[in-house]
Amino acid sequence: MGTLYLIPNTLGDTPIAAVIPSEVVSKILALKVFASENPKNTRRFLRQIDRTHPLNDLQFLELNEHSTDADLDACLNALAQSDVGIISEAGCPGIADPGAQLVALAHRHGYPVVPLVGPSSILLALIASGFNGQNFSFNGYLPVKPAERVRALRNYEKQSAIECRTQIFIETPYRNLKLFEQMLQTLRPDTLLSIACDITTPEEYIRTYPIREWKRQSPPIDRRPAIFSIYVPHR
Amino acid sequence: MGTLYLIPNTLGDTPIAAVIPSEVVSKILALKVFASENPKNTRRFLRQIDRTHPLNDLQFLELNEHSTDADLDACLNALAQSDVGIISEAGCPGIADPGAQLVALAHRHGYPVVPLVGPSSILLALIASGFNGQNFSFNGYLPVKPAERVRALRNYEKQSAIECRTQIFIETPYRNLKLFEQMLQTLRPDTLLSIACDITTPEEYIRTYPIREWKRQSPPIDRRPAIFSIYVPHR
Repeated sequence: MGTLYLIPNTLGDTPIAAVIPSEVVSKILALKVFASENPKNTRRFLRQIDRTHPLNDLQFLELNEHSTDADLDACLNALAQSDVGIISEAGCPGIADPGAQLVALAHRHGYPVVPLVGPSSILLALIASGFNGQNFSFNGYLPVKPAERVRALRNYEKQSAIECRTQIFIETPYRNLKLFEQMLQTLRPDTLLSIACDITTPEEYIRTYPIREWKRQSPPIDRRPAIFSIYVPHR
Repeated sequence: MGTLYLIPNTLGDTPIAAVIPSEVVSKILALKVFASENPKNTRRFLRQIDRTHPLNDLQFLELNEHSTDADLDACLNALAQSDVGIISEAGCPGIADPGAQLVALAHRHGYPVVPLVGPSSILLALIASGFNGQNFSFNGYLPVKPAERVRALRNYEKQSAIECRTQIFIETPYRNLKLFEQMLQTLRPDTLLSIACDITTPEEYIRTYPIREWKRQSPPIDRRPAIFSIYVPHR
């Protein structure tokens, strides 16, 4: 009976040793079966860790948004025989990928689930924002339609003011600048906005200002992965 | 002009190499000034990383819930001269400690803020739960008074059902079993509860079951640090 290991990946172009602990690297190299969205990228990741790693001895299972129950069953069958590692395309598995479904299934069938430490852009953005970390929400993508989006932003701002809650969200990178403009138009001048872009890479950009101040700044976030956090400070 | 580094700590009795990347360890050993809640524990942490590290050459600033504006100013003055590392008592700084105040101040004065990768019990519990990672809230401690606590639990359950949101909270370890009993009495039988205890240590315990099933289990969570997550599955 195997264990399901949740394996971190880098967040872009970063040395492994900067973001993944060495014992986690050893654990990854000891695994024989991997489940991921894109096995080709998983092979590349393993080669980045160790150029001489014997990839032919390994089994790669595909797990993506089109996966059927049969695909999940294949992962579960592999788990009955040996340890399996789930790898995300970037960062921690199970946040923005189909890994969570396999984790849920593993629990249901009594397999141990072990999360391994690595970079999480959401968490790193949160701690670097300077906002409240005892009370925060990650909301994924905002609605696309302008009216719904404005309503969502105002709601997050209101909840932040009432509950002292940090509100975190993301956008498709090529729409980052549009979202930024919409926030400047929608949010109150005193509301704090933190933008964290290309976290852990040499191009990392992290700034926190009130909306009033952001109106005089142009953050370099066009087509780059970014995390947006807002917080309404107490008076 | 210095940079403010956000330095991870272990989550209990774990080897450094299992939870902190080697380049982060090097960065920590290169710093000369540290801000933390308890300088004694920070010295012990540095000695755990490197038994021969020359602690006498380092400056330790105290930053806790009783810190005054003058204490924060002392940290800011140190930052004007050199790099400063904020260390939490456990896990990532700025989540459940006064580090966030210094981070906010650093942003306001234009100092670069760089978060370093390490273990976050909240994030590891989330990915190991098998619940929705695209939409989640960390709510800190629940209210202590029974009636308010029941109301809060029901609210989190309702929000989870409406928004497919994972709801995460914590309790003072010696009250864990009481909270567990209150959840069994308050939440619906189908609601999923994930309990993650002593994460990353040899005693790690992570299980996800519906409330119905938890009624037949006794989780070993008495006086141990635990993260509770609930999620209402779709029909």
